[in-house]
Amino acid sequence: MTASLPSAAVLGARAFAALDGLNRFTDEPGKLTRLYLSPAHRQAAEWTKGAMEVAGLAAFIDAAGSVQGRREGATPGLPAVLIGSHIDTVKDGGRFDGNLGVVAGILTAQALRDAGITLPFALEVVAFGDEETVRFPTSLSTSSALAGHYDQAWLDARDGDGTVLRDALVAFGGDPTGVPALARKPGSLKAYLEVHIEQGPLLEAENEAVGIVSTISAQSRARVRVTGEAGHAGTVPMKLRKDALTASAEMALAMEAIASAHDQAVGTVGVFRPDPGATNVVPGAVDFTIDFRAPLGETVASMDRAVHERFGEIAARRGVELTITPYSREDATPMAAHLQDALATGIARAGSNLSARRLPSGAGHDAMAMARICPSAMLFVRCEKGISHSPLENMTELDAGIAIRVLLETVLELARQG
Amino acid sequence: MTASLPSAAVLGARAFAALDGLNRFTDEPGKLTRLYLSPAHRQAAEWTKGAMEVAGLAAFIDAAGSVQGRREGATPGLPAVLIGSHIDTVKDGGRFDGNLGVVAGILTAQALRDAGITLPFALEVVAFGDEETVRFPTSLSTSSALAGHYDQAWLDARDGDGTVLRDALVAFGGDPTGVPALARKPGSLKAYLEVHIEQGPLLEAENEAVGIVSTISAQSRARVRVTGEAGHAGTVPMKLRKDALTASAEMALAMEAIASAHDQAVGTVGVFRPDPGATNVVPGAVDFTIDFRAPLGETVASMDRAVHERFGEIAARRGVELTITPYSREDATPMAAHLQDALATGIARAGSNLSARRLPSGAGHDAMAMARICPSAMLFVRCEKGISHSPLENMTELDAGIAIRVLLETVLELARQG
Repeated sequence: MTASLPSAAVLGARAFAALDGLNRFTDEPGKLTRLYLSPAHRQAAEWTKGAMEVAGLAAFIDAAGSVQGRREGATPGLPAVLIGSHIDTVKDGGRFDGNLGVVAGILTAQALRDAGITLPFALEVVAFGDEETVRFPTSLSTSSALAGHYDQAWLDARDGDGTVLRDALVAFGGDPTGVPALARKPGSLKAYLEVHIEQGPLLEAENEAVGIVSTISAQSRARVRVTGEAGHAGTVPMKLRKDALTASAEMALAMEAIASAHDQAVGTVGVFRPDPGATNVVPGAVDFTIDFRAPLGETVASMDRAVHERFGEIAARRGVELTITPYSREDATPMAAHLQDALATGIARAGSNLSARRLPSGAGHDAMAMARICPSAMLFVRCEKGISHSPLENMTELDAGIAIRVLLETVLELARQG
Repeated sequence: MTASLPSAAVLGARAFAALDGLNRFTDEPGKLTRLYLSPAHRQAAEWTKGAMEVAGLAAFIDAAGSVQGRREGATPGLPAVLIGSHIDTVKDGGRFDGNLGVVAGILTAQALRDAGITLPFALEVVAFGDEETVRFPTSLSTSSALAGHYDQAWLDARDGDGTVLRDALVAFGGDPTGVPALARKPGSLKAYLEVHIEQGPLLEAENEAVGIVSTISAQSRARVRVTGEAGHAGTVPMKLRKDALTASAEMALAMEAIASAHDQAVGTVGVFRPDPGATNVVPGAVDFTIDFRAPLGETVASMDRAVHERFGEIAARRGVELTITPYSREDATPMAAHLQDALATGIARAGSNLSARRLPSGAGHDAMAMARICPSAMLFVRCEKGISHSPLENMTELDAGIAIRVLLETVLELARQG
């Protein structure tokens, strides 16, 4: 059955050629910037619809701006295996983040059609449009639409220029009133599969082309404000200082120690703004952010507790005021065990030199939204130095091909299971 | 001889009334902003010249923009005791920083004239115009002009709008070609005395109205760049990170420990800028500044060595790159011992409840420049909470009066010494 499938090398070459096509569309010449509902997004959606049609899928751009394609299985109307990812990008982003997964779905559908394989389920491919949360303050809105969890308040969200999402969607050619009808019926989706670059350095460090996502990590974010007393850098003796910067520095190190002490956890202080931020002034206040993630929600909760305790001790000892304002909390989204196993089988069939490394995803993905409506799983692909959200994002053509070959084998494995 | 001198209460009231007059002149309505050579500076200089003339001084605005006033002593042409400070301010600054010292000089001259006292030296008052280094990248240029150390390159300095100092000086009514002639002849100045708010919390903490500056601290400033590796906050495991922010946080704490371990030393990280500074990105680089000060130059040199050693250890252990770029180094400027003693005598004569606390100045002052041409000394006055360079800068009227009374008694003590 699989003898007629293209090799990883062929699939990789096809994928890179397709990505070159798709990535012509950008809102900023010379960079890859494709924001949700922008002109470049519309062009990329049209290109994607065409690519789906060439691959044998009946395709359309849906009311929320996603591109959907479907090929019926042995009989029309069967539940579908849905393969997808997103075609929006961050500003000045990379070529593979999201785009690879969409191209992987299209090339998988094409290869199965070309091989004359009829599946016991429908095969669908989707190119979501709002994964990066760059233009509007939404959260996986286009995949949430399919999952039946679209928050109607998102339609009133505004971008940095004051444009309302509802208006941007109409201008794009979408239909705000049609979004609720995008929700799939329970049972109509057999599985959601997503191929994505790892955006981290683990697979490269372990010399693995691909890995199976075990769970999408739980996450907690907070804004921290430390208020001490501003003073002249030359005249306030050390023992009379309430230096907000050194207090915050001690907290950043405590955060690092807490994350390092928890299994598979990460913790980051990314924003750090002293006030006034002048050479000759002892900072009177610092605003910084904390971002904690771990495969288990309990781990994140434990880190949050530790932060409150340790930061409180530091603030009390140094005589500074402390405010911790949590603003985002996501539970972990475990990937479906039987789909992880199917991916492992797919990996084994794709190459004897491959192993089925399982790893959590510290980044959020459309699979988080899709897991609310159907069993979902993700295949990570090795990328260069773990760099993402940057023009330096890179991967090899062969790794892309291996990932698509694994995806093909996984779909066939699901077909075998019936 | 001192029976006819006004009381501290009267001098304080006069000083606050004079400050109300002088501080009408601002470049920003609603704030006190008076930058070197600005229209507000010109108006304030005219006001100061008038105040000097009313106080019995022959006054003029000099080629560099300072206001100079002089009353001859027993015979014309005697060496002078010069009392001064500055009338430029930082942006949105306080009412007393600099202005108090100028007003103190004028009121001292006035009180001596009113009491009919003839001195065995000339009495001069000066209102320097470029102490704060806010508009142009100069360093005490107007006092350096008197001291004979004016750097001609300052005339080519540009402000933030691109205006050249030379042109601004001409527009102000000054004379760039006349600056060299402002240099006083060695021996023509018997002493330079400056009254200034402490800009620190020590006198308030010790319940002292005034204090004698022992030395103006040595100072060392450096820019530090720490370069690690940027990464996704969710996907890069803690043990694979080269987090520039936590490395820099550890360095800031090392800096604090080093300063705290050295006698009378202070150390400040005032600027701290992570790149890119986004919630979900492990910072790839941080730029921060270090400012070290101590009464002895050796102490500052020792702290600099300790910083290089400790920062180097931290960078090596964390695998980040470190660049330390020193950009400013000032030696300590000890105040003249005999003038410190004269101030102590003045303090004793001004009030039996006052003590002659000596303390270093962590901030720079015009007295640093003047000490290059003549014996110089400073009297610090208590200010509220040590706050300066802020509209919250505050002090009591009585403390201002006490300081001027001390200055009067000190001038009389110098007269007694002949």
